Amino acid sequence: MPLDPSAVFDVVDLTGVLANGILGGVVARHRKLDAVGFVFLAIITALGGGLIRDTLLNLGQPVALTNPLYLMFALVGATVAYFVPMHHRWALRSLTVADALALGCWAATGTAKALGAGLTLLPALLLGLITAVGGGMIRDLLMGRIPAVFGGNTLYATGALVGSAEMAILWHLGLPTWGMAASIVSVGTLTLLARRYRWTLPGPAVWLEGWSPRRLPVALGRRRR
Amino acid sequence: MPLDPSAVFDVVDLTGVLANGILGGVVARHRKLDAVGFVFLAIITALGGGLIRDTLLNLGQPVALTNPLYLMFALVGATVAYFVPMHHRWALRSLTVADALALGCWAATGTAKALGAGLTLLPALLLGLITAVGGGMIRDLLMGRIPAVFGGNTLYATGALVGSAEMAILWHLGLPTWGMAASIVSVGTLTLLARRYRWTLPGPAVWLEGWSPRRLPVALGRRRR
Amino acid sequence: MPLDPSAVFDVVDLTGVLANGILGGVVARHRKLDAVGFVFLAIITALGGGLIRDTLLNLGQPVALTNPLYLMFALVGATVAYFVPMHHRWALRSLTVADALALGCWAATGTAKALGAGLTLLPALLLGLITAVGGGMIRDLLMGRIPAVFGGNTLYATGALVGSAEMAILWHLGLPTWGMAASIVSVGTLTLLARRYRWTLPGPAVWLEGWSPRRLPVALGRRRR
Repeated sequence: MPLDPSAVFDVVDLTGVLANGILGGVVARHRKLDAVGFVFLAIITALGGGLIRDTLLNLGQPVALTNPLYLMFALVGATVAYFVPMHHRWALRSLTVADALALGCWAATGTAKALGAGLTLLPALLLGLITAVGGGMIRDLLMGRIPAVFGGNTLYATGALVGSAEMAILWHLGLPTWGMAASIVSVGTLTLLARRYRWTLPGPAVWLEGWSPRRLPVALGRRRR
Repeated sequence: MPLDPSAVFDVVDLTGVLANGILGGVVARHRKLDAVGFVFLAIITALGGGLIRDTLLNLGQPVALTNPLYLMFALVGATVAYFVPMHHRWALRSLTVADALALGCWAATGTAKALGAGLTLLPALLLGLITAVGGGMIRDLLMGRIPAVFGGNTLYATGALVGSAEMAILWHLGLPTWGMAASIVSVGTLTLLARRYRWTLPGPAVWLEGWSPRRLPVALGRRRR
Repeated sequence: MPLDPSAVFDVVDLTGVLANGILGGVVARHRKLDAVGFVFLAIITALGGGLIRDTLLNLGQPVALTNPLYLMFALVGATVAYFVPMHHRWALRSLTVADALALGCWAATGTAKALGAGLTLLPALLLGLITAVGGGMIRDLLMGRIPAVFGGNTLYATGALVGSAEMAILWHLGLPTWGMAASIVSVGTLTLLARRYRWTLPGPAVWLEGWSPRRLPVALGRRRR
């Protein structure tokens, strides 16, 4: 019996929501948020990427709001992180792995959903990337950090882009379930190896070491006070 | 003659917009913004929560754009704050009270609108919270601050959540107007008392004093330069 | 033969996307982002304002996603900025001019699109402003800066507002193409002169030198750690 792709998608998607709810909670504990801020940050981390994706695709209300399972899984993740400290080596390692797998999963679902909504390749890749890194990006912004996707440390966004591309190819071959599997496996492997061995991408082709424009051509915002 | 709930909602909603337009202006003066930045910040503070709510509910164009009264009330608030310094004790106190009442009002309208759009309980509570704290959250982000909802200082977001829950219960009993009234009164009372007596919520159940993960399981963004 | 306004709009709009893709890339090089962060920042800078506008107008999927030219032009801009250092005086000057022209163009397109969607004057001006400064605002937020629109340095947002007003007037006279032309010319001239001569807008009418509320009436978010 062939697997129903959408059912598989939902299961993997919700696993990613659960893992990212926990991850958001770990960050919230690290930043010493109170209970409501804790749960709110966990929910935004877990659902943010999908909310942005669905808002941009404009296909009705976001699935994170209409399907009650999404908020429930995010809440379960937040609750687990609230009561279980996650400070053991194995807990942090498991979460690192879960984060890497969720990244691949969300890149694939975002791309597939965008292609299914009739978008072309480039927008579909962009939406895959946004779905995968969006929740973490909002979390970082809310915590006063420059999002990791711009951090240059390890191949986080790059991994999401690779997964999106794999899904796009396999989707066009009529194999979305394989696209999901390929994306999860390869993105997970790539980002974990990149984290382990501190792989980074090069910067711009011509780096101009030490160069900084005397005056930027754009009015870049002020430093914070 | 029974009160028309939606008319009552609109009046209280617009009062909240006016108060938050003034509050945004007070923050803008505090941060020494110029006239256009001043008005822009006041408008975003006053309308931000409703804009996010309506965007997520996806029921057509946001009411803050289609009903001209919303922008007008936000502009009136900005204009008042621009010309009246609001540095007297009673002015700041009145604004604190107006902020507390608006918080309850917006939590209630957000929840009621979400339930009316067919969402279930949890998403409706989330939308009530986002409606209530969304404008201030964007204002804080734009001003380079970590939003107060994550600040742990006093029960701001907690109050909004209480108001949302009250509205959800009374909405299901067919009493939305009472839900609005209950939310405004109890959220106003709770947040003002919490501010006065510095009530805070506890953090995570197991606190792990002094603990900080040697390496977070997620690639948390960089510190700002 | 009369010019087709929408065709002219598209050409100018895409030129603005190209220029802002390059500008986003210049900022990305300045902040030493890696290749994926570089391209992502360039795309967000180039398409952010239009994405917010289309999301708020809720007229279906954003044009930046459905018309493949938008992402292509943003990518071309990113690629140019990636390979060409843009550190020469003339390159920075050309980009400054292109940025000023794009500001006027986007203020005009945002306002015209909002009026065409049936919105009234005030929301249309707000959407013109958001379209014009939105991409740069998100770029600044993501880079950990307070957006330039709140920076008080030169008349950036003010220029966009002037262009929006011109478009609104000429649109109501049935002359949208002239509104576009007027907006580009006057916003370009105004912002370049303001940059050259460091023109700024005044702050609030009553400034209260040295005043800072002992306690703000709103719970303003925490400073970053």
